[in-house]
Amino acid sequence: MNNYKAHTSEIIFKLSLQIHQIDRIFINQPCHSLSRCLNCRKAAYETNSFNWRKAVIGRLNHVAIAVPDLESASAQYRDTLGAKVNSPQDEPDHGVTVVFIELPNTKIELLQPLGENSPIQGFLDKNPSGGIHHICYEVDDILAARDTLKASGARILGTGDPKIGAHGKPVLFLHPKDFTGTLIELEQL
Amino acid sequence: MNNYKAHTSEIIFKLSLQIHQIDRIFINQPCHSLSRCLNCRKAAYETNSFNWRKAVIGRLNHVAIAVPDLESASAQYRDTLGAKVNSPQDEPDHGVTVVFIELPNTKIELLQPLGENSPIQGFLDKNPSGGIHHICYEVDDILAARDTLKASGARILGTGDPKIGAHGKPVLFLHPKDFTGTLIELEQL
Repeated sequence: MNNYKAHTSEIIFKLSLQIHQIDRIFINQPCHSLSRCLNCRKAAYETNSFNWRKAVIGRLNHVAIAVPDLESASAQYRDTLGAKVNSPQDEPDHGVTVVFIELPNTKIELLQPLGENSPIQGFLDKNPSGGIHHICYEVDDILAARDTLKASGARILGTGDPKIGAHGKPVLFLHPKDFTGTLIELEQL
Repeated sequence: MNNYKAHTSEIIFKLSLQIHQIDRIFINQPCHSLSRCLNCRKAAYETNSFNWRKAVIGRLNHVAIAVPDLESASAQYRDTLGAKVNSPQDEPDHGVTVVFIELPNTKIELLQPLGENSPIQGFLDKNPSGGIHHICYEVDDILAARDTLKASGARILGTGDPKIGAHGKPVLFLHPKDFTGTLIELEQL
């Protein structure tokens, strides 16, 4: 009986370590904090020889697509592509209206200009049909990430200090010319 | 003892159902086949009210970035952004050399033209610094997805039939003008 208990306890313990990941990854509450989260770090080590602790960037938080007509683009993702499309959210502080599209492993964000001086208006002027505007990587520590990147010569857009982004979390944008023409947002979750 | 056994068996059964997702999602062997995979479908239903069975698109398989200098871009992702960067792979049938970058939840693919008539050369001519070339969504059944999309009026690039893509799986590309300026690849895993 004691052996049986010990054996089942061990199995449950091992499984529960990994269940933590399900809670975080699959239920739209991702745990990107591999350097802080013992369970995720342990599982990452067990399942992959890569040393995640050295990573500056973690998960791909979202791909942002600028669109001229948010309603039409949302309908296309919902009705044609069959994706889970949320309601539009006005973000006046960021000059955009956003629709989140939930995929099983990440998000797509459709962005439409809101108000004057929207930061995506210039992009839409150049790309009237719309297009992929930026990609967003999660970071554990945005100030540490910024300092690492600045030390490597990368330029941070704006003042160089994090702002509170559309999700209410600190964000930074990296100069696309320093990253193969790709506008990269970093977000600390 | 019988009660104890039954109780622990039930716990182990419930946990093992979800462990299946870890095998698929976290160890780079994603299970996107929610319509075929009982375990993933069950967990998806339990964790999200969305009816995944209706979805045409599933996970975001990768974001592809065309780059003029693969070695430099790889070094940047590896050394500056601290990502897990794999070795370059020549794909002469697709006119590209590819470097896969593994993120915890998806992949970035850096693409450099290979040989003459590379399908990404025109993009790089227009964007000499590089840029985001396409995004790839996973589908359960590429022919069913194609037919659904065609019926909605979307145009499929090329012959309209799936080709074997760089990963050895059937792929299709959708006309970017039909999808807000975004080149979308569909891949059946």
